[in-house]
Amino acid sequence: MEKLYEGKAKILYTTEDPEILLTQFKDDATAFNALKRGTIQGKGEINCAISSALFQWLGTKGITTHFIDQPAPTQMRVRAVKIIPLEVVVRNIAAGSLCRQTGLPEGKILPFPLVEFYLKNDALGDPLLTRDRLLILELATAEQLEQLQTLAQQINQYLREFFATCQITLVDFKLEFGLDSQGKLLLADEISPDTCRLWDQQKNDPQERVLDKDRFRRDLGEVESAYQQVQQRVLAQLGIEAT
Amino acid sequence: MEKLYEGKAKILYTTEDPEILLTQFKDDATAFNALKRGTIQGKGEINCAISSALFQWLGTKGITTHFIDQPAPTQMRVRAVKIIPLEVVVRNIAAGSLCRQTGLPEGKILPFPLVEFYLKNDALGDPLLTRDRLLILELATAEQLEQLQTLAQQINQYLREFFATCQITLVDFKLEFGLDSQGKLLLADEISPDTCRLWDQQKNDPQERVLDKDRFRRDLGEVESAYQQVQQRVLAQLGIEAT
Ligand SMILES: Nc1ncnc2c1ncn2[C@@H]1O[C@H](COP(=O)(O)OP(=O)(O)O)[C@@H](O)[C@H]1O
Ligand SMILES: Nc1ncnc2c1ncn2[C@@H]1O[C@H](COP(=O)(O)OP(=O)(O)O)[C@@H](O)[C@H]1O
Ligand SMILES: [Mg+2]
Ligand SMILES: [Mg+2]
Repeated sequence: MEKLYEGKAKILYTTEDPEILLTQFKDDATAFNALKRGTIQGKGEINCAISSALFQWLGTKGITTHFIDQPAPTQMRVRAVKIIPLEVVVRNIAAGSLCRQTGLPEGKILPFPLVEFYLKNDALGDPLLTRDRLLILELATAEQLEQLQTLAQQINQYLREFFATCQITLVDFKLEFGLDSQGKLLLADEISPDTCRLWDQQKNDPQERVLDKDRFRRDLGEVESAYQQVQQRVLAQLGIEAT
Repeated sequence: MEKLYEGKAKILYTTEDPEILLTQFKDDATAFNALKRGTIQGKGEINCAISSALFQWLGTKGITTHFIDQPAPTQMRVRAVKIIPLEVVVRNIAAGSLCRQTGLPEGKILPFPLVEFYLKNDALGDPLLTRDRLLILELATAEQLEQLQTLAQQINQYLREFFATCQITLVDFKLEFGLDSQGKLLLADEISPDTCRLWDQQKNDPQERVLDKDRFRRDLGEVESAYQQVQQRVLAQLGIEAT
């Protein structure tokens, strides 16, 4: 096994099979385009467990994902894909950069789920893309864009209903997609408190309810226990025993 | 006559007729969201002359503009409108923030004219809007958006061909639109070297060819003479005698 790429949250290793990669989830946490760095104890294991559970569950709903299996608590085997360098963000409620950029108040329920595309490019600060900019940059064809949009909306429907059964509001989340060796579009990367904004429906306080990486970004404390909460509820809901 | 609003480049005055405003063009220049301030000698007169000429000419092409007449060298009488708080930008060639944000090289000819919408809000730094953000912010209806897009494309066709006859390349430009008391959509504000990127086709050097506010933004010198060049060529082409 050879290290293929070390990212901010995961390490990718090759395997004997060129179509399969091993993802190692790390405890490292970064925010604000890696200007802020830290560690969230146990995050690697938690995010690997949540992601694995959600990918498998989405699979049963007909969403094709890169997930194969979880050979160890922090490891996920995945189909190797060529990642489309887009962060596909779906928003149900206004938060984060959407509020900073437009002046929309945080917490405003959007009239429809907003699917947005950001260029996955740390040097450029992951800029928001319009449809036309995306086409001009040749990051996807018009057909692929249509496909991504539809997939993102479907995944949002599923996840949002699922998290609601966990008493968690899915505020927004980021997806990455890739093409496998046959050119098939797969949902890749991870789905975790690192990549979703999740609000506890059992809490009213706008800081207390935060169950995601915003606790780290905004120094709200109790980061680990928030991640644990999400893991417990997601696994319990799916009838999976925690390791 | 009462001062209604003083902006960065123009002052608006009321007139006896509530449907008519008087615009006074200033020599004041600002850039980078007014962080940089200065004066361009004669700019008020030049921009008023160019804008008046282009609005009149666009009128003959069937584009409805706010222009009424030019009672003095720095003054334009216009139809009072409720400005739609959008900067409608049309780009033929990559330059400025498009390059900074996406990494596209300056000077790249775009595969199609790019119509972009920015929120006209200095406090927020005039952020780029996607179609969906624009609709969620209720800045325009889907129908108005369609209309703005079509109008912007038409105006670009006319202006680009016109500037070409002046040996000037229309790189990009910003438009503002407004609704008059009958709810009619009018092209408003100004069209000038303050609001267009214009490159002299008689020069090859990427700095020498600049005939617009980028000379001021980037401290390229000879700002006044560049503005004069544009005025001379535009008026000569339209058979208008300079004042
Ligand atoms: N199935 C996959 N095949 C190939 N690359 C993948 C796959 N899933 C995720 N990746 C990529 O793995 C890299 C490591 O993840 P991460 O640590 O989150 O990186 P980053 O710092 O770029 O966000 C990312 O570039 C991500 O796009
Ligand atoms: N026909 C019009 N009716 C009402 N307002 C207008 C009209 N044309 C332009 N304006 C507005 O005049 C104001 C003054 O222009 P300017 O000095 O360029 O202002 P700014 O600093 O906001 O760019 C702007 O807010 C512009 O939108
Ligand atoms: Mg990542
Ligand atoms: Mg202005």
